Amino acid sequence: MESLRYTSIVEGLPATIPFVAPERLERRSGRPLLVRMGANESVFGISPVARAAMREAVDSISLYNDPESHELAVALAEKHSVSPREIGISAGIDDLLGLVVRLFVEPGDPVVTSLGSYPTFNYHVNGYGGRLEQVPYNEDRADLDGLLARVMETGSRLVYLANPDNPMGTWHDEAALRAFIVDLPGDCVLIHDEAYIDFAPPEAVIEMDTTDRRVLRMRTFSKAHGMAGARVGYVVAHAELIGSLDKIRNHFGVNRVAQAGALASLGDESFIRQVVEQVAAGRRDYEVIAAETGLMTVPSATNFVCIDVGDGERARRVQQALLDRDIFVRMPAIAPQDRCIRATVGTPEQRTIFARVFRDVVAAT
Amino acid sequence: MESLRYTSIVEGLPATIPFVAPERLERRSGRPLLVRMGANESVFGISPVARAAMREAVDSISLYNDPESHELAVALAEKHSVSPREIGISAGIDDLLGLVVRLFVEPGDPVVTSLGSYPTFNYHVNGYGGRLEQVPYNEDRADLDGLLARVMETGSRLVYLANPDNPMGTWHDEAALRAFIVDLPGDCVLIHDEAYIDFAPPEAVIEMDTTDRRVLRMRTFSKAHGMAGARVGYVVAHAELIGSLDKIRNHFGVNRVAQAGALASLGDESFIRQVVEQVAAGRRDYEVIAAETGLMTVPSATNFVCIDVGDGERARRVQQALLDRDIFVRMPAIAPQDRCIRATVGTPEQRTIFARVFRDVVAAT
Repeated sequence: MESLRYTSIVEGLPATIPFVAPERLERRSGRPLLVRMGANESVFGISPVARAAMREAVDSISLYNDPESHELAVALAEKHSVSPREIGISAGIDDLLGLVVRLFVEPGDPVVTSLGSYPTFNYHVNGYGGRLEQVPYNEDRADLDGLLARVMETGSRLVYLANPDNPMGTWHDEAALRAFIVDLPGDCVLIHDEAYIDFAPPEAVIEMDTTDRRVLRMRTFSKAHGMAGARVGYVVAHAELIGSLDKIRNHFGVNRVAQAGALASLGDESFIRQVVEQVAAGRRDYEVIAAETGLMTVPSATNFVCIDVGDGERARRVQQALLDRDIFVRMPAIAPQDRCIRATVGTPEQRTIFARVFRDVVAAT
Repeated sequence: MESLRYTSIVEGLPATIPFVAPERLERRSGRPLLVRMGANESVFGISPVARAAMREAVDSISLYNDPESHELAVALAEKHSVSPREIGISAGIDDLLGLVVRLFVEPGDPVVTSLGSYPTFNYHVNGYGGRLEQVPYNEDRADLDGLLARVMETGSRLVYLANPDNPMGTWHDEAALRAFIVDLPGDCVLIHDEAYIDFAPPEAVIEMDTTDRRVLRMRTFSKAHGMAGARVGYVVAHAELIGSLDKIRNHFGVNRVAQAGALASLGDESFIRQVVEQVAAGRRDYEVIAAETGLMTVPSATNFVCIDVGDGERARRVQQALLDRDIFVRMPAIAPQDRCIRATVGTPEQRTIFARVFRDVVAAT
């Protein structure tokens, strides 16, 4: 029988996926990973309150989730001093990125992002037939002037900025971000991805301003809240945008246990504070580990650190050598950022293992 | 500031959503529902094995889910005697429906379904700019000849059939389904939604045949497995189709707790068997309840029963009167099927409450 006939956009898509998962690596090697430091998951677990709420929520899993995630939206609105109508909750930022691309991108439309930035955003832009306009980093940071210039040149109506950045961990301060936003054209929407914002210094955070329809702030429970496997993210934006998402989103898409966990975790601020402190200590550890092997790290406002091993070829060898010893890290894809390996902050024990193996590997490669 | 400029498809979408949730009804009335019989959730809970697996999985929620849901795919492949490459797992059938529409439907393309059938499928067809071609039911069942004729007339490349049907609960047997599939054109894909198949008699189930690229079988853990709030559904299809889904799906979209629960539940066949038995007993109860008030039910192969109250106007009054007494049911949207109210099988206690209130309401309306 003949092959199926897909839409022209789908026909044109490559068979690549955004990430090869650590489970795939384990199936490939036939061995469990020793340390999983490649996906920026939190090694500091979840709030005990969130844990209890999720275990309890299992007992009502036979009921569909509230498609409005009402209680969680109310709590998030309070946290951010906005209206619940300005909160859009979905199954993670990945899901939200796809939805926002779908709202704004017609086939062939230019979409601006940083070259080497979050691959899943690019995946969705390609998936809806958009044309990626990728602006190289400037000294390992998103090039705000370059992004703005490219928006102007191409007439793009959608631009992506992660602050703090992934994969580099770098960030811009409030003044720079504000200047960037002020200069954006009136018809250009900014996806301001703040997945790592809990780990960032206060000066990297701009105030919530939902009166500006152009700015969509995305947050997640996957990082500091330690709930990556739960799939809960949200966008804070003008109510018009949230209403538009309602026209296309998968209304029953957020898991009920995840909703309960996110709500509970939100109430446990002291837990998040100590996670952030432990992550900061871990980042300092990586600086020391790097320095001991004569290497530098890139300053990070996230739960991971880029260690500069010199050039892309060496970094790829280091990454492979670490994997051969069952340590999973990732690395930036594009030169010159690919001179780094990117390691998630592990527990003190994991950092000790990493330090030992990394020292060996760097000496040998 | 001016309104945002969305894609032309999004601009054309209405601000309607597929379902008003029971939680919204509760917020509206300010009272909790007494009986929740409108969403075809299972009142018979989850397998104790699944419960234990989910509670345990909460402790690894900090890790991302395996984007391939590998273990679950292997188990499902074994269950259906197909290859894991012929299984596509996602966050519920709702999510899969959107993905499949996106694979095949170009703006303006005709898509065939039954008039009054699953609204979320229609929501996705509209959401991707497709043109719905809706074929009326024939004696409360999907009109297979009518669907086929409409496919031929319009040259549609996508047709939706739920068997057993929702909202009517009716079904076609193997011979009729096979004849329908044989006659479908070679370039027309059938979404064969089997959400309720666990409750159906054996003659309503056709053999899995993944060599036929045109037929996509969709299944869910939301009904007999009692995991509606978990969001796990899957499609069994030719490996080419599963590979195409990989080009556009949200790879990290399935909750980790849900993956663990589904895998465990799959292994507890005796639990599912007793759920199915209890549901069958509940259906018989509804026949009795209806008969006591002089009404008929529509034969059902699902976990819900349509009770025929005569005409749409009366059914709407009955539905509202039930809601006024905190009993949540739904009803088919289109005449003449809207002469029914659709009640999910409740526990024996819930059925007793329902019987009492329903008797009152029918007498008064």
